[in-house]
Amino acid sequence: MTTPNQLTALAQFGAATVYEANGQRDALDPQIKPLDPRSKVAGRAVTVALEPADNWYIHVAILEAGENDILVVDAKGYLNAGPWGDVLTLAAQQRGLAALVIDGAVRDSQQIVESGFPVFTRGVCIRKTSKVQPGQVNVPVTVGGVVVNPGDIIVGDADGLVRVAANDVDQAISSARTREQKEEDMRQRILAGASTLELLGLGYPDL
Amino acid sequence: MTTPNQLTALAQFGAATVYEANGQRDALDPQIKPLDPRSKVAGRAVTVALEPADNWYIHVAILEAGENDILVVDAKGYLNAGPWGDVLTLAAQQRGLAALVIDGAVRDSQQIVESGFPVFTRGVCIRKTSKVQPGQVNVPVTVGGVVVNPGDIIVGDADGLVRVAANDVDQAISSARTREQKEEDMRQRILAGASTLELLGLGYPDL
Amino acid sequence: MTTPNQLTALAQFGAATVYEANGQRDALDPQIKPLDPRSKVAGRAVTVALEPADNWYIHVAILEAGENDILVVDAKGYLNAGPWGDVLTLAAQQRGLAALVIDGAVRDSQQIVESGFPVFTRGVCIRKTSKVQPGQVNVPVTVGGVVVNPGDIIVGDADGLVRVAANDVDQAISSARTREQKEEDMRQRILAGASTLELLGLGYPDL
Amino acid sequence: MTTPNQLTALAQFGAATVYEANGQRDALDPQIKPLDPRSKVAGRAVTVALEPADNWYIHVAILEAGENDILVVDAKGYLNAGPWGDVLTLAAQQRGLAALVIDGAVRDSQQIVESGFPVFTRGVCIRKTSKVQPGQVNVPVTVGGVVVNPGDIIVGDADGLVRVAANDVDQAISSARTREQKEEDMRQRILAGASTLELLGLGYPDL
Amino acid sequence: MTTPNQLTALAQFGAATVYEANGQRDALDPQIKPLDPRSKVAGRAVTVALEPADNWYIHVAILEAGENDILVVDAKGYLNAGPWGDVLTLAAQQRGLAALVIDGAVRDSQQIVESGFPVFTRGVCIRKTSKVQPGQVNVPVTVGGVVVNPGDIIVGDADGLVRVAANDVDQAISSARTREQKEEDMRQRILAGASTLELLGLGYPDL
Amino acid sequence: MTTPNQLTALAQFGAATVYEANGQRDALDPQIKPLDPRSKVAGRAVTVALEPADNWYIHVAILEAGENDILVVDAKGYLNAGPWGDVLTLAAQQRGLAALVIDGAVRDSQQIVESGFPVFTRGVCIRKTSKVQPGQVNVPVTVGGVVVNPGDIIVGDADGLVRVAANDVDQAISSARTREQKEEDMRQRILAGASTLELLGLGYPDL
Repeated sequence: MTTPNQLTALAQFGAATVYEANGQRDALDPQIKPLDPRSKVAGRAVTVALEPADNWYIHVAILEAGENDILVVDAKGYLNAGPWGDVLTLAAQQRGLAALVIDGAVRDSQQIVESGFPVFTRGVCIRKTSKVQPGQVNVPVTVGGVVVNPGDIIVGDADGLVRVAANDVDQAISSARTREQKEEDMRQRILAGASTLELLGLGYPDL
Repeated sequence: MTTPNQLTALAQFGAATVYEANGQRDALDPQIKPLDPRSKVAGRAVTVALEPADNWYIHVAILEAGENDILVVDAKGYLNAGPWGDVLTLAAQQRGLAALVIDGAVRDSQQIVESGFPVFTRGVCIRKTSKVQPGQVNVPVTVGGVVVNPGDIIVGDADGLVRVAANDVDQAISSARTREQKEEDMRQRILAGASTLELLGLGYPDL
Repeated sequence: MTTPNQLTALAQFGAATVYEANGQRDALDPQIKPLDPRSKVAGRAVTVALEPADNWYIHVAILEAGENDILVVDAKGYLNAGPWGDVLTLAAQQRGLAALVIDGAVRDSQQIVESGFPVFTRGVCIRKTSKVQPGQVNVPVTVGGVVVNPGDIIVGDADGLVRVAANDVDQAISSARTREQKEEDMRQRILAGASTLELLGLGYPDL
Repeated sequence: MTTPNQLTALAQFGAATVYEANGQRDALDPQIKPLDPRSKVAGRAVTVALEPADNWYIHVAILEAGENDILVVDAKGYLNAGPWGDVLTLAAQQRGLAALVIDGAVRDSQQIVESGFPVFTRGVCIRKTSKVQPGQVNVPVTVGGVVVNPGDIIVGDADGLVRVAANDVDQAISSARTREQKEEDMRQRILAGASTLELLGLGYPDL
Repeated sequence: MTTPNQLTALAQFGAATVYEANGQRDALDPQIKPLDPRSKVAGRAVTVALEPADNWYIHVAILEAGENDILVVDAKGYLNAGPWGDVLTLAAQQRGLAALVIDGAVRDSQQIVESGFPVFTRGVCIRKTSKVQPGQVNVPVTVGGVVVNPGDIIVGDADGLVRVAANDVDQAISSARTREQKEEDMRQRILAGASTLELLGLGYPDL
Repeated sequence: MTTPNQLTALAQFGAATVYEANGQRDALDPQIKPLDPRSKVAGRAVTVALEPADNWYIHVAILEAGENDILVVDAKGYLNAGPWGDVLTLAAQQRGLAALVIDGAVRDSQQIVESGFPVFTRGVCIRKTSKVQPGQVNVPVTVGGVVVNPGDIIVGDADGLVRVAANDVDQAISSARTREQKEEDMRQRILAGASTLELLGLGYPDL
C-alpha cells in the first residue's frame, strides 16, 4: 500500500525523474497537459472508461474515489465535448481527490485553475455531453497510449504524466533519490567547470 | 437590439454557460483560443471574409465596426501568415471594438496581451500578408466551423467561443441565470455532502 | 562579425519586426515556441543535427558554443523524447549561451522557465533519449522548415523565430529602425483619428 | 424540384466544375473522400445529426430517403467508430439511395467498394457504435465545414464534394455547360500551341 | 495453440467481424493501414520494440518468426524513416511469415505490393535508419494504441487490425460464425423489404 | 548537364535507391505523394514560389519549362485551394514536361491520372484560386521541407521524392548501380537461405 508520504515524495521528484527512476516506461502522451503548469501531484488511479461525449460514469466513479486518488478517465481522446467542469471539480475536492487525468477535454478551465484542483487534459471544450451511456469503473484503461490499472500510481506535473505500478513505488523512490543526488552532484561539478560530456563519460569526437 | 447591459451579462456568464443556456449549439472550434486566458467578452459580430495571407479587408472592415463590436474574421484557417498585429490592435481600441476573433493567426502576441485588447486566434505567426485581395464585409462567414452572421452575438473566454442569434439573447440570459442558480444550488448541496449522481438524478449502477 | 550591441538591438526589435525588415523571409515554423512567453533573444547559431531520441551530440555541441550563441538543434521534429533538460540548461548558462532552439521536445519545462534560460521548442516530453548516435555540429540544418547555417543570426520571442544571415544584420537593423519609426508614426496618427486604410494608402471599396 | 436528368448532368460535370459554376462556394473539406475514386454522384440531401459513436438515427433516417437521395451524416468528425457498414449499404441500395456522405468513419470498406454504392467518408474504422442516442433527421447539419440543408443538392467525385442550393441548380448547370465549353475551347487552343497565360489574359511579367 | 485452419477462418471473417465477435475491444488505430487494400490476414504476433529510425532488431526478430507469424513492430510511430523495405520483405517471405504490422513507416511500397506480402503501416518514407540501437523481441508492445503480447493473434484487412488473445480464438470464431449468419439473415430480410430499424429492434421515433 | 539517359536511369532506380546512393539527404516530406502510385519520374526542377491560393505564376512558370523538366511549386502547403487542374496538365504535356511536384493541392485528380501526367501533391481540393499575386520563378524554394534550386534533379515514385544536385548525378547513378547490385546479391543469398543479419554483418544478441 502506497503511503501518503510516498505520494508526497513522488510528487516532489516530478514526472521526469520518476519516469527515469522507474525504468523509462509508461510515460503518457505529452499532449495530456495540466491546465495549471504549477500542478505537481501523485496519487492512486481510480479508472473510468467512457463513450465519447457522455459523462454519466464520471459521476459514478467519483463515488469510488477518495483521499489521494486520481480519477483517470479514458474519454476516447474526443476533443469536441467537455465532460468535466467546475461542479465536478468541487465534488472531487469535497471527496479529497488528488487530481483528474482525462484523455479528452474539460470545460470551465479558468475556474478549475482558480480552484487549485489539478486537472490534466488533452483539450478544453464547452460542447455538451449526454448522461446515458454506461461506462466502466476500475477496469484497465488506455490513457495517453499507456494502460493504467486501478490502484496504479500516477505522477504528474508540467512535463507530463507517468504510471508506476504500486509494487514498484519503493524501488522507484529509492532510485529517484539516487538519481536526484547524482544530478545535484552533476550540477555542482558543472558550476565548478566540468562539461556534461565528461560527467556522462561520453566520447569527444573529432568534429 | 442587444444592450450593453446584456453584453456585460453574457460576458460574465461565460461561454460554457451561455452555450448551455442557448440550446447547446454553435460553439466554435476550441482551437480558436484567447491569447490571454483572462479574456472575457461579449459583442456584436462584424464579419470579414479574407483570402489566406491577405489583410486588405481587415483594414476596410474595422471602419464598419465600433463600440461593443467584435470583428469576426474568416482567414481560411491559414496559420502561416499574421494578418493582425499591434497597429491594428491600437486602431481597434481607438474605435472601441470589444475583441477580435480570427480563424487564422496573428502576430505581436505579447504586445496584444499587454494592450488588454481581447484576441481569439487559432495561431501566432510573423509571416507576411499582402494587401491586394478583395474580401467581403458583413456577410455570413464560417469561423471555427460555425456560421456567423453580421449582428450575431459572440461570447468568449478561456473555454472558447459561442455564437448567439441576436433574437435569442433575452432567452439565453434568462436561461443562463436559471442555470447559474441551479449550479450554485448544486454547489451548496455538494458542500453539504450530496453526490452529483443524486443531484442530477442519475442511476447508480452496480459496479 | 555581429556585435553584442547589434544582438541586443535585434532582440529588442523582436522577431516580427526583424522578419519584415529583413525581406520577409526565413521565419521558422511558428509551432516552435518559447517555454516562457517573455523570452526575447538574439544570438549566433551553433547548429546540431541529431537522430531522433538521441542527444550525445548536444553534449558535444555545447562545448562549441559560448557567449551570445544560440544552440539550434534539428532533432527531426520528434516529439516523443526529451533530449534537453535542467542539467543541460545549467551547463548552457555556465557557458553563457543565449538560448536553445530545438525542432523536437525538451523535459524539465518548469525548471527551465525558472532558470531564466530561453528555450524555444516544439514540445515537452519526459521520454528517454539514448547517447549513442553520432550527429553533426556546425553544418547547415533545417529547423522549423528553414535552413540555418552556423553563424547565422537567430531572433526569437513569443511570436516565433527568424533567421538573418550575418551579412544582412546591418541592413536589417537599419530597416527595422525605419520600420519602427514608421509604425510609431502610424500609432500617433491612429491616436489622432486616422484610419489604417488611409495610412497604408489602401483603396476604400464600396461595400 | 431537381429532376433526375439534372442530377445526371451535375454528376457528369463533376464537383470541381459545379463548384466553379455555382459561384465558388460550399466545397466540403476535401478530407471527406470517396472510398472508390471512380465514384461520381449527384443527389438530394437527406440529413442526419448524430452523437459521436452512435448510429440509431442512421437507421431512422434511411427510411426517410429514397431514389436519388444522398444521406448526409454529421457524425461529429469522430474517427474512432464505424457507424456505417455493409448491411446499411445493402439497405441503402434497396431503397435506391444515390450515396452516403459522412463526416466520420465507416467499416466494411472493401465490401462497400465491391457493392458499387458510393460512400464519401473521412475515415475507416471497425470500432463499435451504440444505438441509444437520439439524433436529428432533416435539419441543417454542418458536414466538412459546410452547412447542408435537407433538399440541398450534393455533387461528389474523387475531387471532393460541393453543395448546391436546389434553387441554384438551373443556373449552375447552365454555367457549368458554358464553363465546360470554354475549357474545351482552351484545350483545343493549347493543343494548337497557345499558352494558358494568353488564353486567360494574364500578364507576362519580366522574370 | 491456434491452428492454421483457425487462422484461415479468422482472416476470412475479417477484422470488423472478429472485432465484434471478440467483445468489441483491441482494435488498433485505423491509421495503420495495408499498403494493398486486398490484404486479408491472420497470424501469431512476434513482437519487436525499436527506437525510432533504427532497424537492427527487425533483422534480429525476423529470425524468431516463421510460418503464420506476423511481425508486430513498435517503431514509436515515427514517420520520417523507413525501417522496412523490399529486402526484408523477401527475407520474411522466405521464412513464411504471414504479414508485417508496423507503427511507423516502410519504403519500397510498390515492390512490396507486387511481392504479395501483406504490410500494414502508418506511412511510407525513404529516409534512412541506423542499425545500432538495441531493441526488444517478444515483449509486450503498444502498437496503434493496443498492447500486443507475443503469441497474440492479429487479424487485418482493409478495415484495420484487431488483436485477439490466443485463448479467446475458439470463442471468437464461434461468435463470428453466429454473427455472420445473423448478418446474412439480415441481408436476406432486407432484400425482402425489411428495414434495419425493425431487424435491430430499434425504436421508431416521431420526427 | 544531366542527359535524358541519366534521367531515365534515375527514374528506374527509384526514389529510395537514389536517396541512399546520394548520401541519404534531401528526401522531401513523404506526405507529398503521387496521384497515381505507378508514377516513376526524374527531371530537372523549374521552381515556382506562390502565395497560397493564387496560381498566376504557375501559368508564367510553365513557359519557362520544357522537355524533361519538373515543375516544383511551393504553394505554401495550403490545402484549401487547387491551383493546378486538367487544363494546366494538358499545357504541361504539350510542352513536354516530365511531372509536377506541388507543396499544396490540385483538382481534377482523376482526369490527371487518366492523362498519364505524373503529379505529386500534398492534397486534392476543388476550392478556388485567384490570379493576382506575383510569385517567383526559378529561385530556390522550400518544398516538403527541402530546399530545391532551379536545375536540381528531382526523382519521384510511390515512395516519395528526393532532390539531387545536378553535379552529384554521375556519382549518384554510379552508387545506385553498386547498391542495386549489392541488393540483388543479397536477394540471391536470402533465397539461398542466408539471414539479413549475417548479410549486413549485424550482431546476433542473446534474447
